[in-house]
Amino acid sequence: MPVSLAELAVRFGCELRGDPARQVDHVAPLAAAGPSAISFLSNRRYLRYLGSTGAAAVVLSAADADACPTAALVADNPYVVYARIAALLHPPRGAATGIHQAAVVGREAVIADGVSIGALAYVADGARLDAGVAVGPGCVVDSGAVIGADTQLKARSCVARDVVIGQRCVVHEGAIVGADGFGIARSEDGWVKVPQVGSVGIGDDVEVGANTTIDRGAIDDTVIGDDVRLDNLIQVGHNVVIGAHTAIAAGTAIAGSARIGENCLVAGHVGIVGHIQICDNVTINAKALVTRSIDEPGVYSGKFPAQEARQWGKTVGRIRQLVRGSRNGPGDAG
Amino acid sequence: MPVSLAELAVRFGCELRGDPARQVDHVAPLAAAGPSAISFLSNRRYLRYLGSTGAAAVVLSAADADACPTAALVADNPYVVYARIAALLHPPRGAATGIHQAAVVGREAVIADGVSIGALAYVADGARLDAGVAVGPGCVVDSGAVIGADTQLKARSCVARDVVIGQRCVVHEGAIVGADGFGIARSEDGWVKVPQVGSVGIGDDVEVGANTTIDRGAIDDTVIGDDVRLDNLIQVGHNVVIGAHTAIAAGTAIAGSARIGENCLVAGHVGIVGHIQICDNVTINAKALVTRSIDEPGVYSGKFPAQEARQWGKTVGRIRQLVRGSRNGPGDAG
Amino acid sequence: MPVSLAELAVRFGCELRGDPARQVDHVAPLAAAGPSAISFLSNRRYLRYLGSTGAAAVVLSAADADACPTAALVADNPYVVYARIAALLHPPRGAATGIHQAAVVGREAVIADGVSIGALAYVADGARLDAGVAVGPGCVVDSGAVIGADTQLKARSCVARDVVIGQRCVVHEGAIVGADGFGIARSEDGWVKVPQVGSVGIGDDVEVGANTTIDRGAIDDTVIGDDVRLDNLIQVGHNVVIGAHTAIAAGTAIAGSARIGENCLVAGHVGIVGHIQICDNVTINAKALVTRSIDEPGVYSGKFPAQEARQWGKTVGRIRQLVRGSRNGPGDAG
Repeated sequence: MPVSLAELAVRFGCELRGDPARQVDHVAPLAAAGPSAISFLSNRRYLRYLGSTGAAAVVLSAADADACPTAALVADNPYVVYARIAALLHPPRGAATGIHQAAVVGREAVIADGVSIGALAYVADGARLDAGVAVGPGCVVDSGAVIGADTQLKARSCVARDVVIGQRCVVHEGAIVGADGFGIARSEDGWVKVPQVGSVGIGDDVEVGANTTIDRGAIDDTVIGDDVRLDNLIQVGHNVVIGAHTAIAAGTAIAGSARIGENCLVAGHVGIVGHIQICDNVTINAKALVTRSIDEPGVYSGKFPAQEARQWGKTVGRIRQLVRGSRNGPGDAG
Repeated sequence: MPVSLAELAVRFGCELRGDPARQVDHVAPLAAAGPSAISFLSNRRYLRYLGSTGAAAVVLSAADADACPTAALVADNPYVVYARIAALLHPPRGAATGIHQAAVVGREAVIADGVSIGALAYVADGARLDAGVAVGPGCVVDSGAVIGADTQLKARSCVARDVVIGQRCVVHEGAIVGADGFGIARSEDGWVKVPQVGSVGIGDDVEVGANTTIDRGAIDDTVIGDDVRLDNLIQVGHNVVIGAHTAIAAGTAIAGSARIGENCLVAGHVGIVGHIQICDNVTINAKALVTRSIDEPGVYSGKFPAQEARQWGKTVGRIRQLVRGSRNGPGDAG
Repeated sequence: MPVSLAELAVRFGCELRGDPARQVDHVAPLAAAGPSAISFLSNRRYLRYLGSTGAAAVVLSAADADACPTAALVADNPYVVYARIAALLHPPRGAATGIHQAAVVGREAVIADGVSIGALAYVADGARLDAGVAVGPGCVVDSGAVIGADTQLKARSCVARDVVIGQRCVVHEGAIVGADGFGIARSEDGWVKVPQVGSVGIGDDVEVGANTTIDRGAIDDTVIGDDVRLDNLIQVGHNVVIGAHTAIAAGTAIAGSARIGENCLVAGHVGIVGHIQICDNVTINAKALVTRSIDEPGVYSGKFPAQEARQWGKTVGRIRQLVRGSRNGPGDAG
């Protein structure tokens, strides 16, 4: 469905520099865009592609508009405007509405209007799906789970018993919400499993990435605030609390009972140990290991960047030499 | 089902300080417990909640008992006693027994008495499920797999062909036991896949976390000892051997043919390279990379804790300066 | 099916030292092999098992042949020859051909000859499976997906809409190809989801490990070259490009729009930040974090090996002392 630049400018509050009647019908990257595409420039690494773009128009900031060889939609936050235009031009393709005949839905499940359930999905007795929920093929929604309106469970995701998920969330493929936490007590005869009697509560507008796991609470619930965004393959331990608007990149693991504030940004492969607290507005860089509570907003790091291996070997060797030196130094009788 | 404190004290060998007739019917955290709840204090971080708890009783150690404002169940290992009380008060809710009509079970599968198989699970011809096994919805149990008595496969877990799992294990949601190991041989024409002809053998009382992967052996089997506890999103490579009672936290990866001893504790995000051996009673701290065999019991580490990012930048800069300094030092002609 | 050593030598171009009529029917490790087994020696860590092996024959290099107590198949690349012999002796066991009656296949799916589809797999309308494709039990293949000839999707793997996979690939259990990338734009009201309108293109002869996730592109496609080999639990972000013949070990995460060259080897738990480029023939060692583009072939590292914890504590302390020292040095008024 083509849309004019004029309409985009009005709808999304941009300044238009160029032909208001020009139409676009899809998004494309600067380097590959053709005459019916709209593109964007947000990360300035890609500025070099702007001058030769074939796009009909580009969403960008005022600072870059002069360099734009085609129509420009000038925005304070070009990436947000681009996201909204892309959503307009590329609406989700109509998931089959209704309940697939090869889905298995318990007779005592509570299914609101407008719910779709894919092939070979299982919704247990006692689960509740609110209006507009879309359950993908192969999903499992267990007894007592509540899925809020317009939330999407993508293919083969799994929501365990009694988990409560808010509205407009997306649980991506393969994600597991509500598996038992890792609760084991050491006895003289070996490990004793600690029953995980809590659940998981997820707010509104949350995304849970593919194959990410969010454990149910040991005793209290695990709690994920509104608008939290979790990438793929993340581990969220039992009784973790994540504040609203926090975003976490792939491969990060958060140990049990850690609390992360609001508006935090956690990069990939970060580790956060258990039972600590991180305040609001904290950024943690990739592969850092957070071992203590953080009380001050700011940026935290703890990983050496990779180097050529021989150079890195020298670094390790030099540090070991320094440690040995300090052990045998003037102040050390040994 | 309410239980008296007297019964708990007798059954679990605690000293009771308080009213033996007092009854409890569920567990709750110190800060949230009401008059019919029993709570516990094991991690002293939570001591501050003890004084004002509303619990009917608290399981704790003798050292903390005097500070307890309510009935106390005094135990040498309060966490273990708590685990057992929680299991008593919160028995697993009755999974549907029997075989769901939407499960698919091969005619030549061997199904013992008391087995339950959930909706849309698939048990192939030639698989064997011993007495009391519970297969969750959406699971796959392939041909030749043997699942020992009373083992639970949670929703959407997958047991590949010929894998043998012992008794009383729990394979959590999404876990994969017996996928091919990463065996590739480099030829001049590219990679040649090495057939993974081994299998996986898992002992008794083992837990395999959600979305964890345990690869089948390349030639011998991958072996997981009794009472091993694996958290979520762990990778266990082909031909790895893990000794009894070892526990491993989330996100750890163990490369092929590594051998880990008994009674080890491996924290989260640890990496263990292939073909090395770690002896019994070793603890490895979070995010360490174990590159050599460990022959001495003890604690091993190798990760800088996160710091404020500018401070961390100074650390990195200072180390590079030192390495440069050593390269251009008095003994270096360059 | 027994095969003579003569036949193996001829077929795989080895020099045979020993009885050409001797027959073998399976592979086994040096230490466990019996008289009808063939074994191999490639990693010299296992040389100590050679002298006492009970194998009928051993595949090994000329350098080790004199130490072989039994028949030797001498090869330049013993591991490759072993892989081929193992594939001959252990052919894949006949997956059920045809479409299982409990599979769900859309009427408008395009299914070529010789395709097998397992129990409780779902192939949506508009998906295309070329000749010889094997879809395992519990898989999901969504609309518009194309699976090339002889590719295997193992149990419970998931191929999202419009993803294109080449020929002879193996997508292992639980892998997710084509989930949405992690695209979010920060607005004053919180995160705005960026529609992920690209797809994933995978070449021929690719392996995707168990529970690995490959995200669809944000705007362009994510591209995996021919003969790429991905281990388990790897995250491949949106718009990543991986060149042919590159192999990546478990637990590695590659952030969005990173480009990795051909013939690279990436070890486990490596992190690669977004929007950078790594040239061909680069090796990255375990747990390194690559923060900048790499333009020179070579080996790159960035992780301290684990040490005994007190020793590691001294290392951390000494480094902090040095950083403090430099801050308070002669050039620092503070």
